[in-house]
Amino acid sequence: MNRRMVLYRVGQIMCLEAVLILLPLAVSLLYKEFFCTAAFGISAAGAAALGAVLMLVFKTKDNVMFAKEGFTIVSLAWVLLSVIGALPFFISREIPNFADAFFETASGFTTTGASILENVEAMSRSMLLWRSFTHWIGGMGILVLVMAIIPTDSGRSMHIMRAEMAGPVIGKLVPKIKDTAKILYIIYFALTVVEIVFLLSGGMPIFDSVIHALGTAGTGGYGIRADSIGGYSPYLQWVIAIFMVIFAVNFNLYYLLLLRRFGVVFKNLELWIFLSIVLISTAVIAIDILPIYGNAGDSVRNSFFQVTSIMSTTGYSTADFNLWPSLSRSVLFLLMFLGGCAGSTAGGLKISRVIILVKSAWNDIKQQLHPRSVTSVKIDGKVIENNTIRRVNIYFFVYMALILGVFLMISFDTFNLETNLTAAVSCVNNVGPGLGAVGPAGNYSGYSDFSTIVLALAMILGRLEIFPFLLALNPRNWVNRNK
Amino acid sequence: MNRRMVLYRVGQIMCLEAVLILLPLAVSLLYKEFFCTAAFGISAAGAAALGAVLMLVFKTKDNVMFAKEGFTIVSLAWVLLSVIGALPFFISREIPNFADAFFETASGFTTTGASILENVEAMSRSMLLWRSFTHWIGGMGILVLVMAIIPTDSGRSMHIMRAEMAGPVIGKLVPKIKDTAKILYIIYFALTVVEIVFLLSGGMPIFDSVIHALGTAGTGGYGIRADSIGGYSPYLQWVIAIFMVIFAVNFNLYYLLLLRRFGVVFKNLELWIFLSIVLISTAVIAIDILPIYGNAGDSVRNSFFQVTSIMSTTGYSTADFNLWPSLSRSVLFLLMFLGGCAGSTAGGLKISRVIILVKSAWNDIKQQLHPRSVTSVKIDGKVIENNTIRRVNIYFFVYMALILGVFLMISFDTFNLETNLTAAVSCVNNVGPGLGAVGPAGNYSGYSDFSTIVLALAMILGRLEIFPFLLALNPRNWVNRNK
Repeated sequence: MNRRMVLYRVGQIMCLEAVLILLPLAVSLLYKEFFCTAAFGISAAGAAALGAVLMLVFKTKDNVMFAKEGFTIVSLAWVLLSVIGALPFFISREIPNFADAFFETASGFTTTGASILENVEAMSRSMLLWRSFTHWIGGMGILVLVMAIIPTDSGRSMHIMRAEMAGPVIGKLVPKIKDTAKILYIIYFALTVVEIVFLLSGGMPIFDSVIHALGTAGTGGYGIRADSIGGYSPYLQWVIAIFMVIFAVNFNLYYLLLLRRFGVVFKNLELWIFLSIVLISTAVIAIDILPIYGNAGDSVRNSFFQVTSIMSTTGYSTADFNLWPSLSRSVLFLLMFLGGCAGSTAGGLKISRVIILVKSAWNDIKQQLHPRSVTSVKIDGKVIENNTIRRVNIYFFVYMALILGVFLMISFDTFNLETNLTAAVSCVNNVGPGLGAVGPAGNYSGYSDFSTIVLALAMILGRLEIFPFLLALNPRNWVNRNK
Repeated sequence: MNRRMVLYRVGQIMCLEAVLILLPLAVSLLYKEFFCTAAFGISAAGAAALGAVLMLVFKTKDNVMFAKEGFTIVSLAWVLLSVIGALPFFISREIPNFADAFFETASGFTTTGASILENVEAMSRSMLLWRSFTHWIGGMGILVLVMAIIPTDSGRSMHIMRAEMAGPVIGKLVPKIKDTAKILYIIYFALTVVEIVFLLSGGMPIFDSVIHALGTAGTGGYGIRADSIGGYSPYLQWVIAIFMVIFAVNFNLYYLLLLRRFGVVFKNLELWIFLSIVLISTAVIAIDILPIYGNAGDSVRNSFFQVTSIMSTTGYSTADFNLWPSLSRSVLFLLMFLGGCAGSTAGGLKISRVIILVKSAWNDIKQQLHPRSVTSVKIDGKVIENNTIRRVNIYFFVYMALILGVFLMISFDTFNLETNLTAAVSCVNNVGPGLGAVGPAGNYSGYSDFSTIVLALAMILGRLEIFPFLLALNPRNWVNRNK
């Protein structure tokens, strides 16, 4: 492997993180939280120093990148991002335990939104902003950001994009990857600004609006209140719910909308199935919780909000759905697995993967009945390659094995099956809240340091869709071969 | 599809069921339970009449059987077996609700062992025997029994065997399927008798010994006491635990032992992995529950018993493991998925399938790193075909989807997530007990009729490994084409 280049690129990312930390640093000056300013300053300096050293020591002109380099850069970068990103919380003593700070930051970057904070309202404003800003950075991907803004002559960055972007098949919007990355970030930024405007227009304070727009855009879910979104007006709840849907849709479709290719968007199977599942689940839960809320309006609003929040893997809540009836809780539990569309900022399995799984199973049934017939799996008129089908099926097994493995490892803590299982499902799928003790009214602070680190790594594995991380861990990979 | 032949064969199986009911009928005479004698008599007469009518009306000389005929026969037969087998319970009013009686019988034939009985000790002896006898019949498979005893000139019965026997690849022991079926049943019968002898020698009464040997052999788990095996001596508990291991091993290995091919048996990967998982799980749980039992002997015995019971999908218990610590409960929960070896009477995913899943995932990782390398999945020195790998991966998805679907459907009942999820996992994997309200000290009587029927069908789907049932449900299948 081209180790020099891997470490050089990781250095680049650390430098970028130093720059990104300047935003909360500025906010801490604005709100006169000078203790936090110091914490951000030290962290930014540390990140910059580490990044600069890596870039200087491992400077190389050999830019050749294969799959293993791409996967290793992404895996290393994401772990280091979370370690460095945890420093401000730790140095400022706002999260005095480093394992907790690492969990909180990994949860931020992976857009999980699971928190170990017992009292979020006691945090400084600049720390809250950093926490939510990590969602925004991690949502679209920091390496995609690097590609968008730093000049590079490598034509093989596709491997990075493939490792960091979600879904079974990643398509380029335009021939150049750099331009694709730029377009995605521009759409992302624009939609975030639009959401801020909608929130402001509903009377939400500017700070709250920015926080919630960052949390929604990254489908993360960090907020600033103990009751999440429950205390805001119904209008604001509807705005956030609708934007959770928007950010869980494949961003390619927005680009196609800009190109006025409405027909293609309208015929997108993944979009239709995603919206259908949202509507059906909303209806089922709204009927199930009607006796609790007494009127259809509140039931539908709470149901729609929770469904979009879980399915987009954001994790905001307007109600303690842990207290809802069994059926509603079961539906939400199953939605945690599904996630949003491929190419969005949402986590989970992704709808397109589920479509491929269902279609390939159906195909297999047909073929068992008529062994001589030749059938292929098609989505939106395109034939899905057998290789892709195979990978998606293998991914599903590895994904379930990861969930059950994480569940087993955190079972050393004495929580019940419901809490431990939903914690594992929620973290691997980057949702945030689970049920039981990790429900919307609870948090992850009860877990031991061991479980906290296991869950944090599970989030990163889930965010990178497991394989890049497994590949990077392979020790044979690290033997220095030129290619 | 050759509908005449399908219905003729189903008729044959009904007639066989009538004959099998004569065993508990005889026992009812022995114990002077004449009310039960009447119930068995009516049921046997009904089964015989239905079978005879089907055989007479649909008599055909066209014995050609393709996959769809085989799958349809198996699916139809298993549902009808459970409906007819439920009649004695229903007619005698020992289980007055027919949905419950259907559940109890399906649970018996599928060797699940989940029960809706609130007081098993109140049942008549002949009814208890019928209940446990269904385990024995279903364990090896009733269609395998038909093949072993009824002369047939069809050379294509492999489809039936494939549909009813467990595991990803079914091998014939000897060139003729009929002889393979005979050998399997002889081994099965002999091992059952050996277990009865061991139980008798430990002072267990003859009736109890037969019941528990039938329950162990089929890896079913129906007993006759409220505390399952907890009230018997440690010696008897060890005997049952060891026989649960024996019946969860691929029967082909016993045939190879008879042929003195010890080397092949000794090198069997599935066997080693199965035993390793049993030993590791036993050790982990024994340490975890040591504080409860105070001494290593009791901890190891209870741990080993529970691990073998769950992993062989039998479901007997010596202790209420629902009260054990989180780690032990989590381990047992995960073992429910694994199940025993292919070609045994155990349920679950089967170890060989898990091996294929893990190896194919590992292979995929290697191939992503070295795209040009050609690798293949090997087990016991044999290359596993790509087609088999694909089917196993697709099976895993359909299997998980079934579990989650069943979980969703029974969530209309107000049990918590732990109860509903473990009930679904336990029934699909043919284990029996779950956790929470369906734990070893509980039962399934709290479920509504709807959930009861869903769970009963889930057991049959799980027992037949889903695909035969799905294929048979396909309406296109029923259009009368000659082939």
